[in-house]
Amino acid sequence: MSRQQRDALDAVLRSAPRSETRPTPEQQRSDFSAALTRPAPEDVVTRRTVLGGRPTLELEPAEASDHGLLLFLHGGGYVIGSPDTHAGLVGELARRAGLRAMSVDYRLAPEHPFPAAVDDGLAAYRELLAAGTDPRDLVLAGDSAGGGLSIATLLAAREAGLPQPAAVVVFSPWTDLTLSGASIRSKEDADPIFTEADVRAYADLYAGAGDRAHPLASPVLADLTGLPPLLVQVGANEILLDDAVRLAGRAGADGVEVTLEVGPGLPHVFQHHYGHLDEADAALDRAARFLTSHLGAGHPDADRPEPVPSGLRHSRRASAS
Amino acid sequence: MSRQQRDALDAVLRSAPRSETRPTPEQQRSDFSAALTRPAPEDVVTRRTVLGGRPTLELEPAEASDHGLLLFLHGGGYVIGSPDTHAGLVGELARRAGLRAMSVDYRLAPEHPFPAAVDDGLAAYRELLAAGTDPRDLVLAGDSAGGGLSIATLLAAREAGLPQPAAVVVFSPWTDLTLSGASIRSKEDADPIFTEADVRAYADLYAGAGDRAHPLASPVLADLTGLPPLLVQVGANEILLDDAVRLAGRAGADGVEVTLEVGPGLPHVFQHHYGHLDEADAALDRAARFLTSHLGAGHPDADRPEPVPSGLRHSRRASAS
Repeated sequence: MSRQQRDALDAVLRSAPRSETRPTPEQQRSDFSAALTRPAPEDVVTRRTVLGGRPTLELEPAEASDHGLLLFLHGGGYVIGSPDTHAGLVGELARRAGLRAMSVDYRLAPEHPFPAAVDDGLAAYRELLAAGTDPRDLVLAGDSAGGGLSIATLLAAREAGLPQPAAVVVFSPWTDLTLSGASIRSKEDADPIFTEADVRAYADLYAGAGDRAHPLASPVLADLTGLPPLLVQVGANEILLDDAVRLAGRAGADGVEVTLEVGPGLPHVFQHHYGHLDEADAALDRAARFLTSHLGAGHPDADRPEPVPSGLRHSRRASAS
Repeated sequence: MSRQQRDALDAVLRSAPRSETRPTPEQQRSDFSAALTRPAPEDVVTRRTVLGGRPTLELEPAEASDHGLLLFLHGGGYVIGSPDTHAGLVGELARRAGLRAMSVDYRLAPEHPFPAAVDDGLAAYRELLAAGTDPRDLVLAGDSAGGGLSIATLLAAREAGLPQPAAVVVFSPWTDLTLSGASIRSKEDADPIFTEADVRAYADLYAGAGDRAHPLASPVLADLTGLPPLLVQVGANEILLDDAVRLAGRAGADGVEVTLEVGPGLPHVFQHHYGHLDEADAALDRAARFLTSHLGAGHPDADRPEPVPSGLRHSRRASAS
């Protein structure tokens, strides 16, 4: 049934109303919340808490392990989205991994432009470590802008001299605010959700007058040395396809253990459509297995010493081609 | 123990004697056979046979399934290597997958330059289909030049109007005879096996005066539409790293279901070192699971109609970046 599922999803996404003028951020947040929000699964208990000074949704599956904690950073172009819009997605990932999750309501643009989101991601990560969480029991995940933000948070942690977590998973990560990937244009017809103008508008609001090529804004342009094992999942029908492919290529070149999965016919963050789309459930299962397989001291690089921070320089190399 | 294993392997590979002048192909074949050959596992029975008019080594694990057949194309720069040098590697993959394998002794350069190897790969594939093998029970795999040749064989099959197999796995595939990947130079110090000159010498012998950018010689430059699910495994310490990363990117952009795995600290076709290197065993296990999970009618795209051949044109696009 999967091809029918993919085609039906594509049609639904394309039928979404589009206004002639770009809505205000407030209107976009309200529309996004109405369109996307799915509640946490029934067997996942949610609680409101605070982490790193920001409101945070804690999600605890009924069968969570005592060890292991997932820090999640939601997507929405750094402008929209919240732990509530993503309660279903995060709850499903947490439930499948058997991990308690913390989903952070980091500050959004344009009210709080770059690097506010990175500051909040780092503050959350730092507080988990300060509370005694063993970094080998910690994993990160994020989707879309939250995927780029997950990578940026790990780079900021590296620069701050903090240890890296056990693993990180990103769904359709937005890693390049300069929009230099070829798929930004080559996939515009195939992408049922985004146009180049949509993504550029988010970049304008988040980066403002700042340097869009800053490694914490566009981590695909950063030196990724020292990051933990990384799983990147992306759909082929996305203008952000090359943000994912190039992230994987750069990570591999920088000595990071990386797995990239590209799913044909699938849209941006297709994992949101668990329960209706076989590929979404299968991808969430693989992501959960990836996270849990790297938890603890058992993973292949557990004997590797902490890498020396190499500075948040732009890479000297040309494109990872 | 894995980091120690990787470092030890790197040291052994770097200690291999290198002559001042390039050996003759005959000498290279003899040296390669002496250095690399590992016998098939004890519980894998081997037989000499013929497939597509070429000598072929058949490898049958004790616990092979009745359905399912692996066609393997060995590496060696299109100049060296044989089913005998690769009996261990192919036997291990076949054993772990529970699949009977056919490893083809395709014609080598310089005696038989491009496209002789592709012709032999296609002839073998065509004979398996002609003998009644259901393409859904067929999988392909290859390493290094045999990885590029596996992709080229599938492109040639597509152009010939033949159905595609269920899946394909490539280890450290050499997909670009034009040597345009950035890693050809950026990884020369990290690669304990190859220099740019080594690979260029193989390209000279195989391509001769022909077009090195021909899609069947350099399949990373081809339109890959219609290929079956693809798993690409590569080490980070390889000048051919970008051949693998770009193959995955191109496949994903062309709508192929693709998984790329990059292993840090690992050399070219590290899977040869099963039994001594944990990453090799783990990678072979994942490759075997990938192949068997796509066998038969159960995979997610089994309902997808055969794609229309799109012509062996060079892609119109610029680099997949």
